[in-house]
Amino acid sequence: LNQLLLLTDEPNEFYQLLLKYDLPNLEVIPCSSENEAKRIIPNCQITLAHPVMLAACLHYSRDLKWVQSIWAGVEALMTPGLRKDYLLTGIKEVFGPLISEYVFAYILALERQLFDTRLNQLETEWKKLTYRSLKDLVIGIAGFGSIGQQLARTANHFGMRVMTYRRMPGKHPLAERSFSGEELDYFLQNLDYLVLTLPKTPDTDHIINSAALTQMKPSSVVFNVGRGNAIVESDLIEALRSRRIRAAVLDVFEAEPLPLESDLWRLPNCFITPHNAALSFPHDIVKIFVDNYHRYISGQPMQNVIDFKRGY
Amino acid sequence: LNQLLLLTDEPNEFYQLLLKYDLPNLEVIPCSSENEAKRIIPNCQITLAHPVMLAACLHYSRDLKWVQSIWAGVEALMTPGLRKDYLLTGIKEVFGPLISEYVFAYILALERQLFDTRLNQLETEWKKLTYRSLKDLVIGIAGFGSIGQQLARTANHFGMRVMTYRRMPGKHPLAERSFSGEELDYFLQNLDYLVLTLPKTPDTDHIINSAALTQMKPSSVVFNVGRGNAIVESDLIEALRSRRIRAAVLDVFEAEPLPLESDLWRLPNCFITPHNAALSFPHDIVKIFVDNYHRYISGQPMQNVIDFKRGY
Repeated sequence: LNQLLLLTDEPNEFYQLLLKYDLPNLEVIPCSSENEAKRIIPNCQITLAHPVMLAACLHYSRDLKWVQSIWAGVEALMTPGLRKDYLLTGIKEVFGPLISEYVFAYILALERQLFDTRLNQLETEWKKLTYRSLKDLVIGIAGFGSIGQQLARTANHFGMRVMTYRRMPGKHPLAERSFSGEELDYFLQNLDYLVLTLPKTPDTDHIINSAALTQMKPSSVVFNVGRGNAIVESDLIEALRSRRIRAAVLDVFEAEPLPLESDLWRLPNCFITPHNAALSFPHDIVKIFVDNYHRYISGQPMQNVIDFKRGY
Repeated sequence: LNQLLLLTDEPNEFYQLLLKYDLPNLEVIPCSSENEAKRIIPNCQITLAHPVMLAACLHYSRDLKWVQSIWAGVEALMTPGLRKDYLLTGIKEVFGPLISEYVFAYILALERQLFDTRLNQLETEWKKLTYRSLKDLVIGIAGFGSIGQQLARTANHFGMRVMTYRRMPGKHPLAERSFSGEELDYFLQNLDYLVLTLPKTPDTDHIINSAALTQMKPSSVVFNVGRGNAIVESDLIEALRSRRIRAAVLDVFEAEPLPLESDLWRLPNCFITPHNAALSFPHDIVKIFVDNYHRYISGQPMQNVIDFKRGY
């Protein structure tokens, strides 16, 4: 009989119920504080965990074999000095659709001028605002893992032209053109929408700075749904203030929660969301855990294994 | 050499340019008033026209052979007493994608609480609002022509369960279940979103009344992107006011522009747009006209021929 440390930042009764239903023989030890986790982790080989919370108590583990993250971003577990002698699996398939719903919610809201339309209604004004069809627009997706690829599928569904900027050079079937390495400027030049889905690595640090923003069309919009390190926020603020670009939609930031004093909060062409573009829904996460658990028990290859060298 | 009456409600220089470019041998007579059109129409066999404006001068036509509508809805040309001895072609393919962008703009805005998120930003509040994934929701589409089918494709892309209510009984490959005739109540009962894409015909009059609204879930949302006759507005107002349903998103109305005194303007859970969910973009309309023109000249079957008996 195995013991599972279930470590989340919120009450996790629903996780417990789902796990009990699917894996009645697994002993689940629920926990939602790091201090509690420090006492429990020495006895556990398996954990289903919030990666930032786990990082804080990883040092106390003794016989850890497998960690299933409840988040897509696992960079907290890449910190030098933390043990990396266990199997780490991530969550990929569920966040692509959720991020795609978030990005297209804002693309469509901006194109259809939903906020101005609502103001017109408050003024009882029957006024046909104009818009563009997505089929006439170009989206650029930086980072082309499962999230970027799902965004490309949605963009293709709406007839958008899809460009991508990714680590691997060469054409990808989901994109009209692919750029990599030194080609960032070319990638940025003709986009209506730029969506950053980059993991946090040294390569992605500050990739969008004032030099990059200068390449973009004044009508373009920047999304960040990856990690806050990709954007130099002071440069973005300047570009938004001077209307060098049209707007930004940001779910992630250099510091989170976004500090009250950041001007991003107050720019009318900046849309702030509190790092919730893709929530971890227990029914989705448990489904992935259960599948991997059966693989773990029977010695089959696991899904979404993280490469500690790449960091994702 | 053929003469074309180009009849639109707005200045049509862009139509003229596109037509001249694609069909240099066609003599285009531009016109944006009905009175002017009355003088021109007797000499024209072909018109590319706004259907309501054309209806007002159709009586003056003499040798009319073919009318290409610039709108999807052609019910103005179905009025008894108007001549119906010509070939009428509609616009189908372009409105499906535009309506789908409109409907999903609002579905995603409602699910992701874009308006409340914006208010939180104005208060500098970092607050994770919750939402549902579209894959866990059910959409019902009433009317399953080119627009309804395109909505189903987008819904399928997002993993929604699709139900349809349509004239023809029997299963449709784009929908999990199809309902027709007397089955309206069953169709309505389990929907999260209902989208009406019905043409205006005697069969669709007041199909959504208080009896129908009573069948729906309190959390459901009603869209109308077809024609205003489908909904009894006073019944809908009552259902919205009493929160019998969650919200309505309306692009079409019993009377348009929606009268200032209508309570729909002022209900916080009603979203009003001024019949512009799908605009006729000249580059799209001219492309369809040019294709049909070549078919007309060479005697091939035309695209999107309207059946005067059905009315669409």
